[in-house]
Formats: sequence, C-alpha cells, structure tokens
Amino acid sequence: MAYTSEPWVEPPIQAVHEAVRRALEEDVLPIGDLSAALVAESARARFAFVSRRDGVVAGSRCAIEAFAVCDPRVEVDWLRPDASRVSAGDQLALVGGPLAPILTAERTALNFLCHLSGIATLTRSFVDAVRAVSPETRVLDTRKTTPGLRALEKAAVRAGGGTNHRGSLSEAVLVKDNHLAGVAITDAVATARRRWPGRMVEVECESLEQVIEATDAGASVVMLDNMKPAQVAECVALIASKGAAGRVLVEVSGGVTIDTAPEFAIAGADLISVGALTHLAPVLDIGLDLLSNGAS
Amino acid sequence: MAYTSEPWVEPPIQAVHEAVRRALEEDVLPIGDLSAALVAESARARFAFVSRRDGVVAGSRCAIEAFAVCDPRVEVDWLRPDASRVSAGDQLALVGGPLAPILTAERTALNFLCHLSGIATLTRSFVDAVRAVSPETRVLDTRKTTPGLRALEKAAVRAGGGTNHRGSLSEAVLVKDNHLAGVAITDAVATARRRWPGRMVEVECESLEQVIEATDAGASVVMLDNMKPAQVAECVALIASKGAAGRVLVEVSGGVTIDTAPEFAIAGADLISVGALTHLAPVLDIGLDLLSNGAS
Amino acid sequence: MAYTSEPWVEPPIQAVHEAVRRALEEDVLPIGDLSAALVAESARARFAFVSRRDGVVAGSRCAIEAFAVCDPRVEVDWLRPDASRVSAGDQLALVGGPLAPILTAERTALNFLCHLSGIATLTRSFVDAVRAVSPETRVLDTRKTTPGLRALEKAAVRAGGGTNHRGSLSEAVLVKDNHLAGVAITDAVATARRRWPGRMVEVECESLEQVIEATDAGASVVMLDNMKPAQVAECVALIASKGAAGRVLVEVSGGVTIDTAPEFAIAGADLISVGALTHLAPVLDIGLDLLSNGAS
Amino acid sequence: MAYTSEPWVEPPIQAVHEAVRRALEEDVLPIGDLSAALVAESARARFAFVSRRDGVVAGSRCAIEAFAVCDPRVEVDWLRPDASRVSAGDQLALVGGPLAPILTAERTALNFLCHLSGIATLTRSFVDAVRAVSPETRVLDTRKTTPGLRALEKAAVRAGGGTNHRGSLSEAVLVKDNHLAGVAITDAVATARRRWPGRMVEVECESLEQVIEATDAGASVVMLDNMKPAQVAECVALIASKGAAGRVLVEVSGGVTIDTAPEFAIAGADLISVGALTHLAPVLDIGLDLLSNGAS
Amino acid sequence: MAYTSEPWVEPPIQAVHEAVRRALEEDVLPIGDLSAALVAESARARFAFVSRRDGVVAGSRCAIEAFAVCDPRVEVDWLRPDASRVSAGDQLALVGGPLAPILTAERTALNFLCHLSGIATLTRSFVDAVRAVSPETRVLDTRKTTPGLRALEKAAVRAGGGTNHRGSLSEAVLVKDNHLAGVAITDAVATARRRWPGRMVEVECESLEQVIEATDAGASVVMLDNMKPAQVAECVALIASKGAAGRVLVEVSGGVTIDTAPEFAIAGADLISVGALTHLAPVLDIGLDLLSNGAS
Amino acid sequence: MAYTSEPWVEPPIQAVHEAVRRALEEDVLPIGDLSAALVAESARARFAFVSRRDGVVAGSRCAIEAFAVCDPRVEVDWLRPDASRVSAGDQLALVGGPLAPILTAERTALNFLCHLSGIATLTRSFVDAVRAVSPETRVLDTRKTTPGLRALEKAAVRAGGGTNHRGSLSEAVLVKDNHLAGVAITDAVATARRRWPGRMVEVECESLEQVIEATDAGASVVMLDNMKPAQVAECVALIASKGAAGRVLVEVSGGVTIDTAPEFAIAGADLISVGALTHLAPVLDIGLDLLSNGAS
Repeated sequence: MAYTSEPWVEPPIQAVHEAVRRALEEDVLPIGDLSAALVAESARARFAFVSRRDGVVAGSRCAIEAFAVCDPRVEVDWLRPDASRVSAGDQLALVGGPLAPILTAERTALNFLCHLSGIATLTRSFVDAVRAVSPETRVLDTRKTTPGLRALEKAAVRAGGGTNHRGSLSEAVLVKDNHLAGVAITDAVATARRRWPGRMVEVECESLEQVIEATDAGASVVMLDNMKPAQVAECVALIASKGAAGRVLVEVSGGVTIDTAPEFAIAGADLISVGALTHLAPVLDIGLDLLSNGAS
Repeated sequence: MAYTSEPWVEPPIQAVHEAVRRALEEDVLPIGDLSAALVAESARARFAFVSRRDGVVAGSRCAIEAFAVCDPRVEVDWLRPDASRVSAGDQLALVGGPLAPILTAERTALNFLCHLSGIATLTRSFVDAVRAVSPETRVLDTRKTTPGLRALEKAAVRAGGGTNHRGSLSEAVLVKDNHLAGVAITDAVATARRRWPGRMVEVECESLEQVIEATDAGASVVMLDNMKPAQVAECVALIASKGAAGRVLVEVSGGVTIDTAPEFAIAGADLISVGALTHLAPVLDIGLDLLSNGAS
Repeated sequence: MAYTSEPWVEPPIQAVHEAVRRALEEDVLPIGDLSAALVAESARARFAFVSRRDGVVAGSRCAIEAFAVCDPRVEVDWLRPDASRVSAGDQLALVGGPLAPILTAERTALNFLCHLSGIATLTRSFVDAVRAVSPETRVLDTRKTTPGLRALEKAAVRAGGGTNHRGSLSEAVLVKDNHLAGVAITDAVATARRRWPGRMVEVECESLEQVIEATDAGASVVMLDNMKPAQVAECVALIASKGAAGRVLVEVSGGVTIDTAPEFAIAGADLISVGALTHLAPVLDIGLDLLSNGAS
Repeated sequence: MAYTSEPWVEPPIQAVHEAVRRALEEDVLPIGDLSAALVAESARARFAFVSRRDGVVAGSRCAIEAFAVCDPRVEVDWLRPDASRVSAGDQLALVGGPLAPILTAERTALNFLCHLSGIATLTRSFVDAVRAVSPETRVLDTRKTTPGLRALEKAAVRAGGGTNHRGSLSEAVLVKDNHLAGVAITDAVATARRRWPGRMVEVECESLEQVIEATDAGASVVMLDNMKPAQVAECVALIASKGAAGRVLVEVSGGVTIDTAPEFAIAGADLISVGALTHLAPVLDIGLDLLSNGAS
Repeated sequence: MAYTSEPWVEPPIQAVHEAVRRALEEDVLPIGDLSAALVAESARARFAFVSRRDGVVAGSRCAIEAFAVCDPRVEVDWLRPDASRVSAGDQLALVGGPLAPILTAERTALNFLCHLSGIATLTRSFVDAVRAVSPETRVLDTRKTTPGLRALEKAAVRAGGGTNHRGSLSEAVLVKDNHLAGVAITDAVATARRRWPGRMVEVECESLEQVIEATDAGASVVMLDNMKPAQVAECVALIASKGAAGRVLVEVSGGVTIDTAPEFAIAGADLISVGALTHLAPVLDIGLDLLSNGAS
Repeated sequence: MAYTSEPWVEPPIQAVHEAVRRALEEDVLPIGDLSAALVAESARARFAFVSRRDGVVAGSRCAIEAFAVCDPRVEVDWLRPDASRVSAGDQLALVGGPLAPILTAERTALNFLCHLSGIATLTRSFVDAVRAVSPETRVLDTRKTTPGLRALEKAAVRAGGGTNHRGSLSEAVLVKDNHLAGVAITDAVATARRRWPGRMVEVECESLEQVIEATDAGASVVMLDNMKPAQVAECVALIASKGAAGRVLVEVSGGVTIDTAPEFAIAGADLISVGALTHLAPVLDIGLDLLSNGAS
C-alpha cells in the first residue's frame, strides 16, 4: 500500500538549499571529484535509487537538489515521494544523464536519503504500532535532532506519520526537571501563561503530585517522564476527575520503545514522544543501481 | 582503563565554532529560550554530565563551546577528554554557574555529545574486536557521514581509535563499480597516477580478475567489496604472489559487522572500512544531572 | 518610575551578534571610517547616550556590541537597561575610551538604539492605555517586522511591555481571509488540530458566523478583523454563551490605534494585535553627547 | 501623473537576493508555513497588490523575488515599477498561481513593499515640496538607515526622487561635531584632501566661524547643522563672497521637516539632508487582494 | 597549437559560485554601478575578450558566471576554454546584450580571468620547459595561494598543465624543517604511517642524511629543499641504491626558476614544486573590446 | 629609515576577521593539520618573521589573527607595523608558544603577509619615484584587485604610501571608453552631476577633444588613458588655460611603469593610477625562522 505525499510533510525549501549546498561543499572542495573526472566525458548512464529494505521515503528533495546543483543536465524522475512506503527492491527514482556529475552527487544524495528515510521508517513503525491500538494517540519527535539538520529531520518525522513537537526553545514552554532547580511549577506556569498567551505550556512531571500541581496551575500539557503504563493511566484518570481531560494533554516520554508505546497509548496518553525517532533511527539502506550506460 | 586524549583526535576548532553556532541559532531564534527565562535570575546550579552506559567520549569541544556561547560565566570542568573510555555512571564533566544559560545550552551540548560519543563508542568496539586478532589491521570510516558534520564525525571516529578514510571526493581517487560504466580499471588507474602523483589510488574490486587488473595497473589500495573472508584471503595471497604486498593495501568493505570484522582481519585485510561507524551508530546515552543548586 | 529589565525581554545573543556584524560591515567596508581616522590617535573622550524624548529603552545589547567589535578598549557603562522608562534628558549609558572607534561605532549603535527604542516606546504607550482599563488584556505584535530584524524587534516589543504573537509561520496556525480561497474554516481547524496538537490554532473572522464556525471547530484563538468594539463585545458574549470563554481567546486586529485599543479591551478582547508596533513606530530620538575629551 | 522607473533607481540585485533569502528563512524555518499547508494542493488563485493610499512604489524587486523563491510557478505581473506614483486603490501588480506558496510569500513581500514604499513616499513629498520652490536643490538621505537594509533603503530614496548621501563611512569624509574632540577643522580637511583626492570632504558647521574655517580649508561641502533659514542664507552669502559658490556646496541638516525644507531651499541650500526619510517614514499601506480562485 | 579543455581541469562549480558572488558584492554594494547606470537603457553592444599576450586561459567559468549573475540576458559565447593556449590578439569569448550589465560585470570577470590565466600561463611555461627534457617529471603547485581562492588557483594550475600538490593541511602529511623542532623524522613518519594509511607522507630534507632517514622510515615522498641539481642527482641515486625508486618519489622545492627547473628534471626529480606558480604569476593581460553597438 | 604606522592605513577589522576565517577553513578542514599533530604536545618554540628582501610591511593584522584563531596561547609580538620599511634580514615579529598551532597558522599568516607586503612594497617604489620629482602627485590603485580581497589590498596600498581610488562601482562615477557605446560624455557628466552631487565624476579621455568635452561638462577628474607624457602636458596646459586647474584633476592611467611614472608626474599629472600595484605586485619574500625550541 502506498501513501501519497502531502505538501505539509515536505521540508521548507530553504532548509533543503542550505543543507545540500553545505554537504556538497564539504565533499568536493577544493579540487573537485578526482574519481568522477576519470570517466569519459561522453559517458552517459541511467541509474535507479533502489531500497534494499522495506521502509518509508524521506529526503527526496535533497537528493533531487544534489544532482541539480552538480549538473542541471542530469534528469531525475522521482517515483516515490516522501512519505511513501516502499518494499525491499522498489525503485524510488530514476536518474539519467552525463555519468560524471551523477557520480559526484551520488553519495551526498544517498547520505540525505538514507538518513532521513531511516527516521521516517522508524517513525512509521511507532505510528503504526500506536494507531493499531489507539488511532487518536500521536507519536512525537523531540529536540534530540542532529545539529544543523533539525528542519529536515522534523520533516522526515512527518513523512513517517509522526507529529512534530516544538521546533525550538523559542516556540513553546516546556518546564523540565532541571528547571525546577530555579522555579516552582506553579510559578513557572503562571508566568508562562501571562507572558505567552496561546502557546503550549508543558510541564514534565515525575509524580502524581506534580501532575496535580501542573494541572491546577493551568498547564496545557503534562509530560509524564519515565512512568509505567499503570502510572500513566492513574494520571489520566486524575486529570479526567478534575474535568481537565482535553484541556490538558497527557504526553508520555522517556525511554519509550516500539513495545511499550502501544501500552502507553492504551493507558490513555494523548502524545507519546520518542527521542529515538531522530537520534537512534538506523539508516534505511538505499543504493544507486546502474540500469544502462553508453556514450552520447 | 582510561585513554588520554591526543591533539590529533580532536576536530578542527573551525568546525566546532561553525557547527555550534548553527545548532544554537536553530534552537533559540527568534525569541530565545522561553522556558529557561522562567527560572529566577539569581538561580545558580551545578550539574554533571554523566554517562548512562559504557562508551567512549567524543564531542567535548562542542559541548564546552555551547555553554561558552550562551554565557561566558558558565564554568565547565571537563574531566574525561575525547577518546576516554567511560563506564555507566561516570562523570564526564562538571558544569556550574547561572542556571538559565545552562538550561539553554543543555540540549545542544547533549545532542553533539551523545551523537559523537555514539560514533566513538561503536568505532571502539570494532577496533577492539579487530585488534584482538590483528593489531596492525585498521578500522576505517567512510563518506557515509551526516551532511554538514563530516569534520566532527571523522574526529569522533579517531576518538574511538578508528582511522579516517579520505575526507572528501577531492582528496583521493576511489574508482567504484558505478565508475566502470564510463572507464576501465586500467585506464582509470593510469590516468589517476599521472594526474595525482602521491595520492592514494584505490579501486573497488568484485572479483579476482579485477584485483589482478587493479594491482597490475598500479593501484595503491584494492577495496574488496562484499567478499567473504575466504575470498579476501585469496586476494591477499594473490597480491603477495605478485610481490605487491605492502605496496598495495587490501581494504575490505561492504556490510562488515562486529562479528565479521575479525574474520576479515585474520584473512589478511590491511584496512576494514565500516559505513556503520558514522551512519548506524546509536547515540551514547548521556545525561546532565543536577548536583546542587542555590541563589547567588 | 523605572522598570528593571528582566532576562526574558532581551533578544537572543545570537541575533545581536549577527545583526551588529552585518550593520558594521555595511558601514565600514571596504576602506574603513575615513573621517574617524582623521582624529589624533591619542585622542580620548567620554560620551553619554542621552534620550531627547520620554520613552522606553531597547537595543542596548546591540549598542554595547557595536563598540566592543570596533575596539574592545572602549568602555560602556549601561545605566538604563532594556525596558527602562526614560525621560527627555536622561542618560542611558556612558561611553569612554579612544575617540576614533567610538565615532566609528556611533551611528550603528544609534541606528539600533533609536529604532528599537522607538518600538518599545510605542508599545509601552499601547500597553499603558490598555492596562489602564483592562489589566489582563495583552497587546501583541505581528509578523509585520522589518526584514532581517524580527528577533530584535520582537524583543523590543517585550521591552515595551508587549506580548509576542507567533515568531514565524512555522510556529502556530493562523487561518486568514486569503486562506479561505483554498480551505473552509472547519476543515482547516480540524486538520490543524490533528497535525499540530498543543499549538495555537487561530482563525481570522470577519463575521459572527465565522466566529461560531471557528469556535465550534475547536480554534484556540479567534482573530476579529476590522470589527467595531460593539461587534467585538457581541463576539465575546457569543463565545461565553458557548461555554468557551477562556478556552477560546479573542484577538482583535486591524487598524487598532492608541485611541481604539482601550475600547477593544473594554469590549472584552483578550489580545489586541497592533502591526503599528513594529512597522509604524517612530524612532526614539537619542543622541551621543560629548562629556569630556583629552589625550592619553 | 506617473513616473517611469529608471534602472539607476533600482537596488543592486545582490542586495535583493540576500535580504529576501534572510527574510524568508526568518519566517519559514524550521517547519515551514503551517497555515498555508492547510489549503488544498490544487487550489489556485489570482491576487492584486493594491495600494490603500497615495504614494510612491519601491521594493518591487524584493516582492517579485519572494514569490520566485517560494515557488517558481507563481507568476507575477508587475504593473507599476519602483518610482511610480500611485493613488489609493491602484493595482501595483498581479500575482497568480498555486495558492499555498502565494500565502507563504505574502507577508515577506508586503514587509519589503510597505516599508520601502513608505520611504519612497515620504521622500517624494519632501522632493516635491523643495522642487516647487527651488528645482536645483536636492533632498538627501543619511546613514540613519535600518541595520542590514541600507542598500534597499537608499534605493527607495532614489525611487522617491531623492538623492543618496554617502553610502557608508568608507566612501566620503564628513567631519562632525564629535570629531572636533580630536582634531581641528583646518587640519582635518587638509589631511582628508591629501589622503583622499577627488572624494567629498564635508564639514558639519554650527557657526559662521566654522563655515569660514571649513571653506578656507578647502572643504567641498559644509553641512549647516540645526541653523535657521536666515542663518543659512547668511552662510550662503558668505561662501559666495569668497568666490566659493559652486565649489563649496551648502548642505542643511538637522530636524528638517516638510515645512521647513522649502525655506532652506529658498535660503540657498544646495542639499537638504533628512534623516526622517529612512528612519521616520511610515509604511505605505499596501494589501494583497484576492481577485479570483479555483482549482487546477 | 590549441589544447582542448578537459573536465578535470575545471574548478568545482561551488567554488565559482561563492567567489563570484563575493566579488560582485564587493564591487556593487550598496548603491550599484553608478557609471553603468548612465548609459541608455536601450543600449546594446557586442564585445570580445581579447588576449593582449600569448598565454593560457583559466577562469572562464568565473567570467561567465559574473555576467549571468548581473543579468541573465547577457549572452556569452566562450570560444577558448580553460587550458587553451592563446596568442596575442586572439578572441577568447564573445559577449553580447544590454550594455549596462556588461559594463558592471566587466571588471569582475577580468579580475578573475587575468589573475587565473596568469597562473595558467606561468605554469604552462614551467611545464613546457620541464617536459622538453623529461616528459615524466611533474610541475607542482604549493599552498602559497591567495587566501580565499585556493580552489580556483589550483584549477588554474591544472589548466596550465601543472599538477596539484595537497589541497590543504588536512589532506596529506608533509613534515617540514619547522616541524623538526618538535619531532624526529623517523618518529614522525612512523606515526603518520600508522595514523593515515594510504596517504602521502612527505618529508622535507636538507641533507643526504635526512633523505636516508626519511626513506628508511617509509616516507612516500622526500622533498629536497634548496638543493643544487648535483645534490638532487645524488639523492636520486641514493634512493635507487636502496631499491626505493618509484616507491619514494623525489620532489624538488625552493626557489626553482624557469631556468633551473629543467636541470632538476634532468637530475631525476619526479616532482618539482614551484610556489611562484600561484604567488608570483603576473596577470595575463586580457581586455574587453567593443565590437559593435546600437539600441534595441 | 622606518615609517611608523598610522591607524588610517590599517584595514577594517571586519575584513581581517572574515578573510582569515575563510583562509583557515580552506586550509584545515575537514580533518585538521595532519602534520602539526605529529609534534610532541609539550613542544614549544619561538620564531621570528624575517624579511628576505627590502620592502614595506602590510598584512600584520591578518597574521596576528591567524595565530589567535588557531590557539590563543600563541604570543605574537609585532615589531614592525604596517607601512614600516624593512631591510632584508629584519625581524618583523616574534611568535612564541606551543609549537603545533604555530605550524598550523604559519602558511596562512605568510600568505597574507607576503602577498600584502608585496603590494605595499611595489606601491612604495612607485610613490618614492614620483615624489622625488613631484611631491604633490599621488599614486593610485585601481579596481584590479584580487576577488574577495579588495579591502585588504587597498589597505596594503595605503601602507605603501599610495592613495586609494574608488573602492567600488558604487562610490564614484568613472565613464570609460566602453561606456561611450551607450552615452556621450557631456550627457553622462551632466546626469552624474545631477544624480550624485559631491561625488567624483571622472571621464576617461583618449584625445584632447574628449578632455575639452569632459572639462566643459563639469567632470571633476579626467583620466588620460595611454597617453605619452607630452600629450599629458598638453592636456594639463589646456585645462589650465580654461581656468579649471585644481577644479579638474588630471589622472594618468594605462600601462604606467616605474620608469614612466615620474615622467607623467613632471608632465603635471595630479594622480597616476597603476593597476600593477595590486595585480602585478610580486610577493615580498618573508619567512618564519626558528629561534629556539624546547618542551613545556
């Protein structure tokens, strides 16, 4: 079964331009691609990006851009857009034209594609596991992203069916355990509510008492950190008993695995955030296979 | 047992500056850290970076830089430099000073530290496994690095005891299977030798015939792609029989695992390159634990 | 009466560095400051930044940075931090040291200071006018900021006692009239809610019908565009009648003036957004006055 | 009456590229435009930029570039080039194509257009007022520009019929009051003349004595700071009596208003510099009005 | 006799984009080209780049890019690609289109073209002199390049038939005299060999003893610094006597001139490195001559 | 005889920062300085920059910055500032500290120092030759600078006693032969005068008729292109006969050599511009000599 890509899952084009420019400069300066320059100038070839595993595609814009920058004569026909589910052996895209620039862009394109598709694939598996038991529960990413690639990795999470948590420290309030060294929950929420009307104000809670304090203070999300499913269910019930269900979302966080995620969903979590989506996702193994070659 | 860090394992300071600047801009613009601004201005605290697992440290310069940029008053005492082996529970560094900027830099510092230490840790396990059976065989990285972070990831490989393959397409010649769509091995090596005296000229070989051709053509390294240990041993013997041992290094590549790496080493490989070092390394789990807090 | 500055009103230091670097490059490249180089190398002087009008300070970090970049020997003693109310004739800061670099940095420092203090001053007047009649109503900025200066202008709004609306298109959902050319309110809110749990989902409404639709759909803010105070009061009452008061914030927007803002506050608006804060604020007239001079 | 745009009034294309890139990154990173992504992918629409007030256009290149970067499929038909006088209700340009990217670029385009047209409009009113009484007198801008936007704002001044003073500290010599803390006028002019032949050497004068000193020293422009028209006339007569009319231009500066500018022109000023052109210009109110919409 | 350009001599396109962007910004900001804006908007013209001297072309990509950035309507027909030998009076390229942008880009294009062709021309003369007596000896550049232009200057050396030495400190090991203040040759080579298998490990030698030490230690290149041809021959013989000919390349360096280069080649040097190629090359005098003009 | 440096000859610090950052990134990324990392960590040394030739110093700020960036522990004691005349064998500066970072920064520092001192030295020889016969005649640079280094090269010209012509196309008007394909001299000057009051308006003239036209039109400088000294004297006389001496400066340009420059000065030229200053200056040979070494 294939998913068709929707515009909102794609990364901002500005992030694509910048990241691909940087990656290519990293790989070809100062002298250029010594090896690709060995092939005959007239050599032309057609290749296919082929997935070696089942997975979900992300990063296609970056791959397309890498070829376009190296040589606008390279033609890329992208068959499976971001968010597509693919099976081992599936062709993702066809690439044809002069051989040398294709070889130069190959590794840059693959580095983006494999890394981001790996994130999409892992996200998809969490999302599928959770939706199977609780269609409304969302799987969220975190700020545990690779430095410099946040925009692209957040887009890969969307490609995998996941949901983006805040994009940066500047977007929303999240009071974590280490903040409590300098402020109490009630004060933090009150101040945040006053300063930032309309924004999410979330509090990390490690006990039922903290959940009560955060809820009473007016938090919009409580993040239950490292709790067991039974404890989560208890917190959910507590919030409901206060008539705050819906108004206060319950997020579960901390060491969630593909096995425990559904249990948290069943326990009533609205949101399950998984750092692993971006910082533990294995790459999706994708290769660039030669289809045909000749001379122009 | 601890390793002391050597200067050559550290990343170029230029790469550290640029990557940390970009990561912090990504995380605090445009409004700043909404949450850290909630703590009392007078709040001060001391924290320790603590490893939750056994591993090898990398990325310490990036972590130090992240705090320095956010607030020069934060004091960082780094205990375990890059390349140190650490055990679960070990303190890596102490961080003290005003609470708010510590909270702001925390995630950026951890993102570098966990990602790069993960690479160093995986590298170390490959290096240890290989050295146990063949002290002279080297474990190499590849160009399968995260876009924009090559300099830092290559340094993390060195921190793990690994060896850096070429830094970019511009540094050395490596003729791979896809190049053969446009040039023959003998011609490629001859041209490369003429154009780039002194540089490594490597050829990816999938058969004994290609090994013979590459060796006769004057390659300095043959990369045996996806061969079994027995085939590798055969190639090594062949090269020796040609009196080219030492002059032609043998690199094994393609799907090498921690289990198969020692087998390839025993089979006589000089170099074993492992893409997984940089693109499949799980992060090393490191946390920032509160030691004490108060007000100034 | 003076306000003391709080950390959360200050701009991210990253935005300060970047903007000041750019401004100075713009002003001194390629040859340098021809005029300042005419003064004797030994000349030293002390100056004061003096406000020519009553107002509110913003941009002090930028001013400090401009001198530091031009010559670290220049000493700046900042007396009135961002968010301070000042009267005509008040000294904001003292600047002393070698004369030439002070002259070079003078205009850059003033350009930031006058522009950003102008925004803070205008914001303050709106905030004071509104708070006088409705202490809980907040005055918000918009995305009508000067290109390239959003972070600094949003901080200036905070310095003036104002509240920041979303920092960018990436932060929150705001469905405006032009969006309705491609989606219906109900569908937009439903999709936004599903995709972006926890984020603000706001809808611009031009009629009571749209307010009803947005409220029923689950919007967290309704923006009443170009309505009269009486209409606003009607909408507020409507939302209250649906039991959605508090859950659905009411924002008034569109041509709000210092005279009409209090009327909207009285009518029950929670939020009043004023594009003028950033795009119509007259600069605050500040000068750099010579206090004394001599030779070192 | 309409003015047709001339190439020399347009900003350097390099300044346009850089400023628009920065503005869009500021507005869409890291996640993209959440709201525009809600509209149907097939939605298409036609809009017109419409001026809500009489004014003069500037910034059209920036607006065009903003759409082009967001999506090259958006078509922009610019009707009224920079420097055109427009009346309230006039269409400036037509914009058509896929709805989503038009919405994403809308605010960035308007921010440039309104800000820069505001400068052009205010400049035009000063120029018209001055030319009515003295066709040869020029209205000049200053270095009181918004940090980072000098090139664009100087172009907007030209679009309004104004004249650019020096572009930076590096271009020309201007000895101001604060410089006199470290050098005497005669010495400053002599040194400047020797170092920088051919460049403008200007001296700010606050008295007749200083005008005499500057003229005798060989200044090419005397800037009369905060003088009354009668004093200006006296200075002009003095310079004429020295036979220096034409060789020494007379610039009036300091708090010039639309009312006093003609008086200074009549008094004989060659140049009238007005900081307000760039730092006190109200935005020109321009909107993007929907003309039609549908689906492709 | 003309040489046709080969792809490998061309600079990486990324270096071209960046350098041309910077050069044009340097020349046209903030106000633009005041002089070109004086010509009639309808003026069109055709020009030819004409070499005033015999030489070798380099930098054509930069020249083409300069016109493309200033105005895509300018058409450039490049007749003599990089690496072409040209005679005084030869046309290198034809340039036609609107006059103003051609004038704006002219100097930037010429600055690249004359500087880089100067390098190619000087390189060619060294290469020709050396090849006449020893076809296998290579002429190498050094790291004595103009800051910021290394990639382009290294490409110009290739265009002149020269060979690139290491591109940066990061690529290969070269132990020079000043390094010996901190490490002995034998240790340095051993460490380098262990750390960087496959990379060139070169040692600068000032005596026969050092050559012996370096060769025995396993250096891949010995750089004979400031030796006479007879001493070079002695070193070459020594290396041959050790059976290391071919395995250890002999590089001559230090004050090599067009007269002494052939002597070193005859003496048996494999490589002759010449700092002068990049830091002492006189520009090749090239002009842009008007062919015809008119109005469109 | 030594010249002491004056602040106005130094480059803008912004240009120094940017150029050194770029140069070091070019030289040490991605892996760092492989060779310097071979020396013992404890190794320390003292070096001196020593000139191998008589010359004039420029670029000292860049050299200082290069060491500071690589390691702040390196101490640089600069003895001979920019604009100092030095003799072969003179020490320019002392450098001491940890050996490895000194070696890493060495080539970058020397590349700036040799290149820029070469420009200062050549400039000085022209200036001395001209001043010997005509103390008031100035030697000017041109826009024939190395792309990306204009600010530094213009400063080097000042260090050599030379005078800067316009810094960019944006600063002053210069109508050259190719402009005449699109505008007549009289019209160009009139338009330029009207648009750009106070700025230099210069016209390149190839005949006496053009000199007359330019003078009558009101040019402030006539550039006599490729004329002989006798023709120049004729033009000077002509301008004097029109009573325009002093008002219209006479610049000689085009292939001026050290031999012909004094002849042009005697012929009455006010300004002699010499492209060779920046594009044909041989580097000044400077080395970094070891003074002592040891271990810390």
